[in-house]
Amino acid sequence: MKEAKKVPLYERFALDLEEQIRAGTFPVGARIPSIRESSVQHEISFSTVLQAYQLLENRGIIEARPQSGYYVRLQPKKQLPEPDYEPLQGDPTSVGIDDVSMRLIHDTLNLDFAQFGAAMPDPTLLPTTKLNRILAELARDGKFPHHLGEAVEGREDLRIQVAQRAFSYGCDISPNEIIITAGCTEAMCLCLQAVCMPGDLVAIESPTYFGILLALESLHLRVIEIPSHPRKGMSLEALRFAVENHPIKAVVAMTNFSNPTGSLIEDEDKRELVEILSAQGIPLIEDDINGELHFSERRPRTAKSYDKEGLVMLCSSFSKDISPGFRIGWVAPGKFYREVQSRKYAVNIRTSVLPQLTIARFLESGGYDHHLRKIRRAYAQKVELMADAILAHFPEGTRITEPGGGFVLWVQLPGKLDSMQLYQEALRAFIAIAPGYIFSPTHKFNDFIRLNASCWSDKAEVDVARLGKLVKGLLSKRG
Amino acid sequence: MKEAKKVPLYERFALDLEEQIRAGTFPVGARIPSIRESSVQHEISFSTVLQAYQLLENRGIIEARPQSGYYVRLQPKKQLPEPDYEPLQGDPTSVGIDDVSMRLIHDTLNLDFAQFGAAMPDPTLLPTTKLNRILAELARDGKFPHHLGEAVEGREDLRIQVAQRAFSYGCDISPNEIIITAGCTEAMCLCLQAVCMPGDLVAIESPTYFGILLALESLHLRVIEIPSHPRKGMSLEALRFAVENHPIKAVVAMTNFSNPTGSLIEDEDKRELVEILSAQGIPLIEDDINGELHFSERRPRTAKSYDKEGLVMLCSSFSKDISPGFRIGWVAPGKFYREVQSRKYAVNIRTSVLPQLTIARFLESGGYDHHLRKIRRAYAQKVELMADAILAHFPEGTRITEPGGGFVLWVQLPGKLDSMQLYQEALRAFIAIAPGYIFSPTHKFNDFIRLNASCWSDKAEVDVARLGKLVKGLLSKRG
Repeated sequence: MKEAKKVPLYERFALDLEEQIRAGTFPVGARIPSIRESSVQHEISFSTVLQAYQLLENRGIIEARPQSGYYVRLQPKKQLPEPDYEPLQGDPTSVGIDDVSMRLIHDTLNLDFAQFGAAMPDPTLLPTTKLNRILAELARDGKFPHHLGEAVEGREDLRIQVAQRAFSYGCDISPNEIIITAGCTEAMCLCLQAVCMPGDLVAIESPTYFGILLALESLHLRVIEIPSHPRKGMSLEALRFAVENHPIKAVVAMTNFSNPTGSLIEDEDKRELVEILSAQGIPLIEDDINGELHFSERRPRTAKSYDKEGLVMLCSSFSKDISPGFRIGWVAPGKFYREVQSRKYAVNIRTSVLPQLTIARFLESGGYDHHLRKIRRAYAQKVELMADAILAHFPEGTRITEPGGGFVLWVQLPGKLDSMQLYQEALRAFIAIAPGYIFSPTHKFNDFIRLNASCWSDKAEVDVARLGKLVKGLLSKRG
Repeated sequence: MKEAKKVPLYERFALDLEEQIRAGTFPVGARIPSIRESSVQHEISFSTVLQAYQLLENRGIIEARPQSGYYVRLQPKKQLPEPDYEPLQGDPTSVGIDDVSMRLIHDTLNLDFAQFGAAMPDPTLLPTTKLNRILAELARDGKFPHHLGEAVEGREDLRIQVAQRAFSYGCDISPNEIIITAGCTEAMCLCLQAVCMPGDLVAIESPTYFGILLALESLHLRVIEIPSHPRKGMSLEALRFAVENHPIKAVVAMTNFSNPTGSLIEDEDKRELVEILSAQGIPLIEDDINGELHFSERRPRTAKSYDKEGLVMLCSSFSKDISPGFRIGWVAPGKFYREVQSRKYAVNIRTSVLPQLTIARFLESGGYDHHLRKIRRAYAQKVELMADAILAHFPEGTRITEPGGGFVLWVQLPGKLDSMQLYQEALRAFIAIAPGYIFSPTHKFNDFIRLNASCWSDKAEVDVARLGKLVKGLLSKRG
């Protein structure tokens, strides 16, 4: 309780409690602590608490219910983060990658928004029924293994499943070489921590996923941007030059269907990528989160499968194809296994067990292949339809990628339009998009936007048309 | 596939596959990929795969089952980390905090060990039946909210429950001031990242929980050890001197029932602690993970409840009382909210949703108080009985704490015995203990051990007697 002068104790306590009610700690209808409980915990007399409660009751904030206790009556002032329309007004330069990316996540919770922002999968393409069936089984059979502890590196059954899957796409890793993480981002953070010291230089694709930029910043790492072709991925020529001329400690690359461009480093180029880095002994942190979401027949390989020295640290997760909320990813860190394991312990000891177990059961059940075939077809179609709609509704001069996997589109606006301005106008129109501004630490891609095609629908077509109109409006204002 | 000279392709492929089988990727009885699958994925001809499979079949490693596929027959060489007896032989100085703490976690999975090592709760004192009932309900009702994404700061229903609980022990925080994390360790790491730069100086208790030491090391922070009284906790005199004479950027303290000593900073001293730090504008990272596990009538307060400037960052979790495997913790970071939220995004975007939802439902259901009363009584008794047994079975000169909460005991061995030596001997006797060596970066407490009393039982008494005999043996060898 805060101290105050000359206000009676019961009033001060009533004020504290009222503050908590207005802040949402005790929502309407919630029971507040009993007089006895408050008396013990706050070390004030029974009668002081009673006086405070009577005061709040007189003000209509709480009500007594016979034989039950005191309950919140008041409609508290809503302080929760409701969507507001002008959160990013003013000078756009004051808005960082940080703010926009946080907002992207947040807007996925608001069903009023057209969900072109965060790269979230289509909820209807997740294996929900099957996951629920597995959960029900765990709840029935399981004594308590799903909520006891586990090894730092995660459950063995899940690691076996990951290794089997990796073998199927030509990547020979054993279950003992794998560490389960809370998603792919965590896997990559652990890798960066394992091989870099603060201040070290890391080579990244340009453009690159903003989450990696935030991770690099939070670990106090410096970056060098390697140009990445929208179809063929990271330029190996530029990379070769960079590693020969700069003290690069690690390279981060999304080899298959990169975020944001959807680019693919061809398998032969992956081999060369690994050779370039092996020659210098530089670790490659390979993000393969979209590898399974290929639209053509064959699953592309990973750079890891060409790695002979344990320098490739392969990261992925089940957030795009099974469950974004479970936060289950993994890393095969090659010769840096011990370092990554140790960082995992330091960061959060181990990954939540129940989601690990649920995914292991799902994979063991054998329906994963079938599920993947289904969602690959669906995403291929959604990406194509959305690209068509963009070409139809955006002004002439708009350019667009044609990704061979994943579910995002990378769109270049005509006339060097400012993506942050479009982002803010779109928010006001309840359309979430990811501005190109946040995909480079030097904001090189400010005339691009990334659009999530996963939620394509008839309604989405209307929203793309509305977005196209906003782009045209900006363009004409400029003109 | 690795390259090799002059070995036919089918033999090389067979060798790769055999290696994977021996490494456990395909356990006994598992189906290996079909000939067609392997042919497509590894880009080798159908007949090459067939030859490879026949070779493995001839060697008795796999077997064909009609109309079904190929399955693993061989009993693969077990490469999983089984408990081995002499992992820490040789020079004890080569064993770091890292190795021992990883091993502590690992040994909790082995039911042959007497579980005095890691500070894990008693599995039978977790609300398993109720959690299973909630899971079953979620599986039945829930369409898919439990595996979709969430805000970076976590689910609102859980944050409301945490805020209500905090209010009950005199700590006024609103749901909007709370961020859900993957356990208490993660909460503290995020706080350290939010207020410190690499190389900064952090004041810690001495002795202190080894997990914090690992976190500090992984964040490249330097530490200054503040003596901590086994009953009264961190010395405020020493702290005052330290903050006035060193550029300390943050203080980390377990105010209630510290790990390992069980010490409690009295509420009045907490107020003084906050005042000392406020005068210098230094943030306090307060670890309250054991706060609810008090043995006396009244729950001790938190330093946070005396904080007027938002400098106290309160961290806790549900790992000790509800579920260690769920990995659900939280932080109320005061005025550093935005920084912590941003670090959370960078580290792993958000916490797994299903465990959050399960715990929120558990807390809403109203049985938490009853559950806590039950386990407090049980742990109080276990701690007392184990302390009695130690006094009975350990040699004269052994000293021991008498904690008022939590479930660990801090034991000083007589004659300055080496805790690492005892640790290794105990491992060979299938008894896991935590050597005092790992509770200080300067290994000040090498003649101490920490014992987990949570699993106290009749069988445990036998193990304490065996441990006492080992101590006596070491003492007599010393002569």
